[in-house]
Amino acid sequence: MTDKINPIRETDDKARALARRLLADASFAALGVIEPETGTPMVSRIALVAAPDAAPLSLISDLSLHSACLGANPACSLLVGEPEAKGDPLTHPRLTLQARATQADKAALKAHYLAAYPKAKLYYDFGDFRLIRFEVSHAFLNGGFGKAFQLSPSDLFE
Amino acid sequence: MTDKINPIRETDDKARALARRLLADASFAALGVIEPETGTPMVSRIALVAAPDAAPLSLISDLSLHSACLGANPACSLLVGEPEAKGDPLTHPRLTLQARATQADKAALKAHYLAAYPKAKLYYDFGDFRLIRFEVSHAFLNGGFGKAFQLSPSDLFE
Repeated sequence: MTDKINPIRETDDKARALARRLLADASFAALGVIEPETGTPMVSRIALVAAPDAAPLSLISDLSLHSACLGANPACSLLVGEPEAKGDPLTHPRLTLQARATQADKAALKAHYLAAYPKAKLYYDFGDFRLIRFEVSHAFLNGGFGKAFQLSPSDLFE
Repeated sequence: MTDKINPIRETDDKARALARRLLADASFAALGVIEPETGTPMVSRIALVAAPDAAPLSLISDLSLHSACLGANPACSLLVGEPEAKGDPLTHPRLTLQARATQADKAALKAHYLAAYPKAKLYYDFGDFRLIRFEVSHAFLNGGFGKAFQLSPSDLFE
């Protein structure tokens, strides 16, 4: 392998603000989990709501494939930041989170979740839906070609 | 764990047609890989072009994080099918692919790739970009609540 240029820039307030905005604005995410039987990745779509402290929350059905995977291995990754309909999707900023799925207090967060995601009221109280909180350990911001940043939880959350 | 309803329907021609359309229309995807150092998933965005035989192709920089991960472990997953700007994103159909990343013939596929993704002409010939072909082993179609299907490569490709 040849010598590589390090494409990562030093994290600054502009990068932090962009990453926080991408996370706050996301109503859904691509969730990456590991299938326990094969050890291979699986990416699916989940709804996303920012908790009062800005951590990502998602109401997930026990019947979903990712739910079974997270039950076996809570290590996961989220991608947020949707491209515009036009233009090169690779120039649109996006944020990769590395996280662990933990159980949130579904009853306590009901009003908060439904205020952000009203359609979930149809199934929020179903017994086979649980509220997941993603504890973020690290993040990677891609602001477009040549604009990459590594971020810590303190860059994203108060 | 309680008894679960199986949410998977029998794959029919309508499901096959929807899955093929989602794949053919995708100009980008969420790519899930496994980080070799931590064994955890990582999801990032890549460009996507359908090969002449409909297999997904992507031009990937050696400097990207996913490139290093795929070099260590080619098992990966792709999510395609973008929600509309309005409405519940979970009702929009999407397709999860489970695949292995393999090296494609970059020179032979140049004209084909650039016809679908003209912006890549700026960097297609750079030495640190390689063309990846995703060999799909399995797919999962979610056509919205209660409309889930398991698909094999023969459901997706000729």
